[in-house]
Amino acid sequence: MAATITAFERSPDRGRGLARDMPVRWALEEAGQPYDVRLLSFSALKGSSHRALNPFGQIPTYEEDGLALFESGAIVFHIAQRHAVLLPEDADARARAIAWMFAALNTVEPPIFERSLAGILERDEPWHEQRQRVLEGRIRERLSDLSSRLGGADWLDSGFSAGDLLMISVLRRLKGANLLEEFSALSAYVARGEARPAFKRAFDAQLAVFTAAS
Amino acid sequence: MAATITAFERSPDRGRGLARDMPVRWALEEAGQPYDVRLLSFSALKGSSHRALNPFGQIPTYEEDGLALFESGAIVFHIAQRHAVLLPEDADARARAIAWMFAALNTVEPPIFERSLAGILERDEPWHEQRQRVLEGRIRERLSDLSSRLGGADWLDSGFSAGDLLMISVLRRLKGANLLEEFSALSAYVARGEARPAFKRAFDAQLAVFTAAS
Repeated sequence: MAATITAFERSPDRGRGLARDMPVRWALEEAGQPYDVRLLSFSALKGSSHRALNPFGQIPTYEEDGLALFESGAIVFHIAQRHAVLLPEDADARARAIAWMFAALNTVEPPIFERSLAGILERDEPWHEQRQRVLEGRIRERLSDLSSRLGGADWLDSGFSAGDLLMISVLRRLKGANLLEEFSALSAYVARGEARPAFKRAFDAQLAVFTAAS
Repeated sequence: MAATITAFERSPDRGRGLARDMPVRWALEEAGQPYDVRLLSFSALKGSSHRALNPFGQIPTYEEDGLALFESGAIVFHIAQRHAVLLPEDADARARAIAWMFAALNTVEPPIFERSLAGILERDEPWHEQRQRVLEGRIRERLSDLSSRLGGADWLDSGFSAGDLLMISVLRRLKGANLLEEFSALSAYVARGEARPAFKRAFDAQLAVFTAAS
């Protein structure tokens, strides 16, 4: 039986593939695993039946044969562990790929996410510009370190992995911020991810949901 | 050969067990796995030999038999996957425990970490109080959801797991913030974690480092 994921009925990113169902869709496409999508309104997200699946009332969730999961990183890991295209078989290489998954979500994403949030919540505050500059400094430090490590390689640790999938998903949140462009190796890295056929299928699928709702 | 981790020579938390070597030490103690510690000064953290281990110049790292890992969540996972006390053998229960690991680091921690950071970086700004209230609102929302899910249970998903270890480590960052205290189930949950002998051994070991450096 195909897994079922949840996604926004009408994504606030207007189909740009920045909602957290996108990395899950991408992983499913890389793995060649068919899936169904249940779309949720904002009010349904906060309802008790969805909270039984995700205690924080967020998307995505993942249901398959009696297993219910939440948290995009964990869902990507669950899909990845069964498919060598996303996590290498060699134990050490696998451990390093998993390290990049956590680095994407717990070291690189936080200042990037805060910047997006500040752009919504603090836009009208007199100190908005000042805080944006501080956040951009924090982001630039992470990007500089990441760019140095990537160097001229295609992917973070030999072949493409779920670590790259999550890192590229996180970096894509910087579109329009004029920060990624300062690091040509990272811009090329993101473009390399977006050129993967599995990324394109996932992107088109989430865009079709937004277009249909418009 | 015992694994070697890195930690601060002189932790900025003054031995309160809030640095990121603490969850790794705790996991190693739960697993009964002996370990060595290499202490690093702040300047050594940013040096090229440490950056070869951790591209972001942070602690902790983990080295064992030719494998080098960084990112505390990934290191805890690496230790946990070999020990049923940290990750259950049953595949579905294991996937759910991993979901709580990611939820701790990517859903619950971000506003808690931002609050700590704002307390350092923005303390003298006229808008500091205003922002702290917003961050506290974001934190309260997460704590409320987490508390509802935990209910009267001892741990997040049946037995203690690495998901609890990371969640409790994240919640401990709220000590002194008067927020955790609003949720008695969560205060009791953190106390339950801190009462584990493995936690105490790990806490004492990191405190001894700070005391020796003082």
